[in-house]
Amino acid sequence: MKQSSAEVFDDLSRSNVNSAWGALSMEVLARLGVQTVLTSPGSRSTPLTVAAVRNPKLEALTILDERSAGFFALGLAKRTHRPVALVCTSGSALANYMPAVVEASMSGTPLLLLTADRPPELQDCHSGQTIDQLKFYGDYVRRFHQLALPETELFGYLRQTLVHAVAQSLQPVPGPVHLNFSFRDPLAPDAGAKPVCSGGDLEAAATLITRPTEAVAASQGFDTVAVERLMSHSKGIIVVGTENPPCGDDVFADAVVMLSHKLGWPVLADVLNPLRNHAGENEALVSSYDALLRDTSTAQALEPTAILQIGNLPTSKVLRQWLGDLDASSFLLTRLSDNTDPLHRVATPLYGDAHALAEFLPHQKAESAWIEQWQSVESKTHKRLDEALDAMDELFEGKVAWLLSQYAPIDASVFLANSMSVRYGEYFWRPGNRAISIYCNRGANGIDGTLSTAMGVAHRGKPTILLTGDLAFLHDSNGLLAKKEMQGSLTVLLINNSGSGIFEYLPVSDQKEVFESHFATPQAVDVEQLCAAHSISYRQIESWDQFKAELSLSPESGVRLLELRTDRKADVAKLRGILG
Amino acid sequence: MKQSSAEVFDDLSRSNVNSAWGALSMEVLARLGVQTVLTSPGSRSTPLTVAAVRNPKLEALTILDERSAGFFALGLAKRTHRPVALVCTSGSALANYMPAVVEASMSGTPLLLLTADRPPELQDCHSGQTIDQLKFYGDYVRRFHQLALPETELFGYLRQTLVHAVAQSLQPVPGPVHLNFSFRDPLAPDAGAKPVCSGGDLEAAATLITRPTEAVAASQGFDTVAVERLMSHSKGIIVVGTENPPCGDDVFADAVVMLSHKLGWPVLADVLNPLRNHAGENEALVSSYDALLRDTSTAQALEPTAILQIGNLPTSKVLRQWLGDLDASSFLLTRLSDNTDPLHRVATPLYGDAHALAEFLPHQKAESAWIEQWQSVESKTHKRLDEALDAMDELFEGKVAWLLSQYAPIDASVFLANSMSVRYGEYFWRPGNRAISIYCNRGANGIDGTLSTAMGVAHRGKPTILLTGDLAFLHDSNGLLAKKEMQGSLTVLLINNSGSGIFEYLPVSDQKEVFESHFATPQAVDVEQLCAAHSISYRQIESWDQFKAELSLSPESGVRLLELRTDRKADVAKLRGILG
Repeated sequence: MKQSSAEVFDDLSRSNVNSAWGALSMEVLARLGVQTVLTSPGSRSTPLTVAAVRNPKLEALTILDERSAGFFALGLAKRTHRPVALVCTSGSALANYMPAVVEASMSGTPLLLLTADRPPELQDCHSGQTIDQLKFYGDYVRRFHQLALPETELFGYLRQTLVHAVAQSLQPVPGPVHLNFSFRDPLAPDAGAKPVCSGGDLEAAATLITRPTEAVAASQGFDTVAVERLMSHSKGIIVVGTENPPCGDDVFADAVVMLSHKLGWPVLADVLNPLRNHAGENEALVSSYDALLRDTSTAQALEPTAILQIGNLPTSKVLRQWLGDLDASSFLLTRLSDNTDPLHRVATPLYGDAHALAEFLPHQKAESAWIEQWQSVESKTHKRLDEALDAMDELFEGKVAWLLSQYAPIDASVFLANSMSVRYGEYFWRPGNRAISIYCNRGANGIDGTLSTAMGVAHRGKPTILLTGDLAFLHDSNGLLAKKEMQGSLTVLLINNSGSGIFEYLPVSDQKEVFESHFATPQAVDVEQLCAAHSISYRQIESWDQFKAELSLSPESGVRLLELRTDRKADVAKLRGILG
Repeated sequence: MKQSSAEVFDDLSRSNVNSAWGALSMEVLARLGVQTVLTSPGSRSTPLTVAAVRNPKLEALTILDERSAGFFALGLAKRTHRPVALVCTSGSALANYMPAVVEASMSGTPLLLLTADRPPELQDCHSGQTIDQLKFYGDYVRRFHQLALPETELFGYLRQTLVHAVAQSLQPVPGPVHLNFSFRDPLAPDAGAKPVCSGGDLEAAATLITRPTEAVAASQGFDTVAVERLMSHSKGIIVVGTENPPCGDDVFADAVVMLSHKLGWPVLADVLNPLRNHAGENEALVSSYDALLRDTSTAQALEPTAILQIGNLPTSKVLRQWLGDLDASSFLLTRLSDNTDPLHRVATPLYGDAHALAEFLPHQKAESAWIEQWQSVESKTHKRLDEALDAMDELFEGKVAWLLSQYAPIDASVFLANSMSVRYGEYFWRPGNRAISIYCNRGANGIDGTLSTAMGVAHRGKPTILLTGDLAFLHDSNGLLAKKEMQGSLTVLLINNSGSGIFEYLPVSDQKEVFESHFATPQAVDVEQLCAAHSISYRQIESWDQFKAELSLSPESGVRLLELRTDRKADVAKLRGILG
C-alpha cells in the first residue's frame, strides 16, 4: 500500500515543513523538465532558494537585480523553449520582473515566477516588505495561483499545482505563469536537519510524476475552403517575420521551402526567423525587399494577388506600406491565436504551423516566371548593396550587420537589440548557410533588458553575439552583474553613436532645442571603464579588418565587448544613400 | 463672450493638435503646482516631451532608464510632497516604472505617470512596441484614466481630467495616478509651427485654473471616548516610526513634544521621522530602546499600560517583540486609512495627524517619575553605546550611522538604504538638533532604486548623503546615468562588506553550502572603476578621522562616493557585542 505524504512527513517541524515544501517544488519542477532556477537574494524565499541549490538535477544561478534575472531567464527560455523558474523574496522584488514578464507574455516565452510572500496575517498591516502580490502581473501571466501555506497534508496539492503550472506555461500559448508562495517563520531548515530533497520521503511524494510535460502541438486541421483559395493564386508571396519556432530552425526552414515549392511563390523573410541563415534550399528567398521596393516601377511590377504571412510582419516600413496598398488576398498563418496583422487587411487566419500547412497542401507546380522575376530583382539589388557596403572603408553602423551575417561563427547565436540594430539586420543581413540562430525581444520591442536577455541566450548555449547600440546597452548595464553566473561565451558588439540613432529618422529631429537633450540623449559613460569595473575584456574596433579578425575569435567563455564608435548624423546620410 | 477652445484651435493640423494636447497638459500641470517632469527617450511620447521642454514654468529632465526615472521622481516627491510627472513611450517602458510605483503607493508619495500609447486600431495586432497599458499598475495607483485621442473639442475635458488627476495624487491618500495618453501619427509638430504653449490660444484653454490644488487636510475630529481612554493612562509611551510629514519636520516635532507634555509619556522614536534630529525640546525622547530593552529586568520595569503609536512601527525586532507581549492598550494615530499594526494588538485607530491630536488633548500634568525612569535608563544606555563606539578605532559598519548623526552637515538630507543601513540608523543615530531630514523607501522596504531615489531627494534640495550597503547600491547602479541631470549635491557613503550583511543575522547563515553563493551574494565589481566610468569622484575611507574630515566637505554639486570597506563577519560579532 502506498503511503500518503501526510504519513511520511508527519513528524516535521514547521521550519522543516517549509523546507520540504521548497524541496518538493524543486524536485517536481526538475522532473517536469525545468533545468534552471534563477534566484535573487532574499529571506522570505529561503525554502525555495535552499531547495533549488540542493537539488542536483537543477542549476541554481543567483542574480542580484531581479530585473536582470527576469530577462536572463527570458533569453534562456527563448533559446531552450523550456520554462525557466525565477525565485524572489517578498515586497518590491517581484515588481522588477515586470518588464521581462511583459516581453515573455507578448513573445510567447515560458517562465515560472515563483515569488515568496508573507502569510495573510502579515498583509495589509505595514508589517514590512509586504505588498499585495495577488494577481500582481494582471493579464500578463497565463495563470496566477496563490499557494496554500505549507502543510504536510497538502503535498499532493502542491505537486499537482506545479504540474499544471508548467503545462500552462507551455500551452496553449507559451508564456509566464505566476505562483505566489506564502511562508510563515521560521524559514530556514532546522540546524542539523537532513536535507529532505535527497530523502526517500520526497521520492514518495513526487512519484506521480511520470514524464516531463512538454508543449503538445494541437492537432492541426485547416479550413479546406480557405486553403483552396490560397492555392488558386499563381502570383502570391510568402512573407515571414519574427518566428522562433519550437520545432527547430532547420525544420522550420524546410517547411517554408516546401510551402514555396508547392505554391510557386517567393519568400520575403526578415532577419528574425531562421530562413536567412538556412538559405541553401531556398532559391526563392528575398531579403532585400526594403531596398528593392523603394523603386516604384519595380514595386508595381512585383505586385502579387495573394500573400501568405507567417508569424508577425517584418519591421520594414517600406514593405508594410506596399503590402497595405495592395489589392490582394491575405492569409495569416499563426501558431498563436493573436491577430498578427496591424494593416487590418481583409485577411483569412490559418491557425497552425508552417510544417503542418506544408504537409496539408497538395503538390502544385511552381510558376517559374514569377519566381524568376523576383530572383532577378533580388540578385541585382544584392549586388548593388554588396558593392556599396564593400567599398565603404570607414566605420558605418549598417555594415556591421552585413559583415556579421558573413563572418559570425557558423552555428552561433546572434541577439539583435531593438531600435536600429534589428533594422540594420533587416536591411543588410545576407542570406547564407551559417545556421546562425537569431533572437530579439520582439514581443514588446523594448530596449530594456537587452544585455541580460542575450546573456540568457548564451548561458550553456552556443557562442553568442549581441549587436546593440549604446542606449540599449546602457539601459541594462546592471545586467553585467550576472556575468559571474553565465556559463558560455558572449561577445557584445556595441555600436556607440552617442545617443539614439533611430530618432534621427523621425520628424522630431528637426526640433533642435529638444532633440539632442530629450530624444538623442547621449550618455556620458566611459564604456571601457565600465567594462573594467566588471572585469570584462574590452577592445575598440577601428577598422573592418580588425573587426573580422576579432569576430573569428569567440571567447571560450565569459563576456567581452567590442566597441565601434560611429557618427550618428553621418550614418543617417549613408543609410539613405545606400537604400535609395 | 468667451471663446470655446474648439473655436480657438479649429485650424490645427493633426500633428499640431497632438502638440497642443501635450502643451495644454504641461501648462495645466505647471499651474497646478507640478514643477518637474522626468522624460525618458521615446517617439510615441513626443507631444508630451516636447511640451514639457518648451514650457518655461517646468523643469524637464531626461533619464534613459525608466526604472531610475521612476525612483528619481519618487525621491523628489518624497522631499517636496508635490506630484512629480513621469513621461515615457509605449511598450515595455512603463513596466520599468513598476518598482517605484509600488513604493510610491505603499509610502503615500504623489506621482503622475503619463504614459504614451498607440491608438486603439494599433492595439492587439502585433503592430510593434504596443502592449496592453490599460490599468497596467492594477491596484497600485489611486486612479487610472485612458485619455481620449486628442481633439480640439476636448481641451476642456483634458484640462479637467488633469485637475482631478493631480488632486487624486494628493488626497485623500497621496500616491501614484496613471494617465494613458494615446496619440496617432504624426507625432512631432509641423516644421515651422509656432510652439502653441506660448500662444494666447493655450492661455484661453487653460484659464479655468485659478489656483494650485494642494493636499487639503481633512477636518480632523477624534472620538472623544477613545481620547478619554488614552488620557486615563499615566504610564504610557508614544512610539513613532516612519513619518515624512507634509506639515514640515519641525512642526511635526513640536506636535509630538506637545503630545508628550500633555500625556506625560516618553517618546520612543526610530530614525525615520524628524524627532531625533529636532530633539531640543523633547526631554522625553528615547532612541536606544533596541539596546535597553534587551535587558529583561529593565524591560519589565518599563512596561507601560498604554501605547500611542504614530505612523508605522519602528523596525526593531526587540521593540516589536516587547510591544507584542505587553498587556497594554494600543492607540494607532495615522494619517492614512491603513492598518499600521502588524502585531494585531487590541488597538484603537485614531485618524488624523499628530498636530491635530495634540491640539485636541486637554492639558494634563506629566507624571515626572515615569518619564524620569525612562530618561535614566536611556542616558545610561547612551553612555554605554557612545563609549563602545567611540573606542572603536577600526572600521565598523554601525559606527558610520553614529558619526553621521553627529557630523553630517546641519540641515542636510540623509537617505538610508533598506536592509542594514536603516537598522544601524535605528540602533545608533544619536538625538540632536542638526535639523537633518531623513528619507528611506520604507513603503515596501525594497533595496531597489536606492541610488535613484536619493538622487531625487538631492535634486534642487539640500546637500544629501546616502548611506547604503554594496548590494543596494549595485542593484541600482544604472541610477548613475541620471547624474548628468541632477542639480544638487549627493554623497554616497558606501559600506562595502562584499555582500549582504543582513542575512548574517538569519538562521540560514548556518547553511554553509548555500549561504555565500545564494544569500550573501558578494558581487565582483570594482566600485572605483564604476565611478570612473560615470565620472564620479571616488575616495576610499580608511580611518574615522578621514571620514569626519570628508563629511565636513559636501560637494557643491554633483555626486561623489566614499567607500568604507568592512568585514561582514567581524561586524556581526561587534554589533552583537555592543547591543548586548
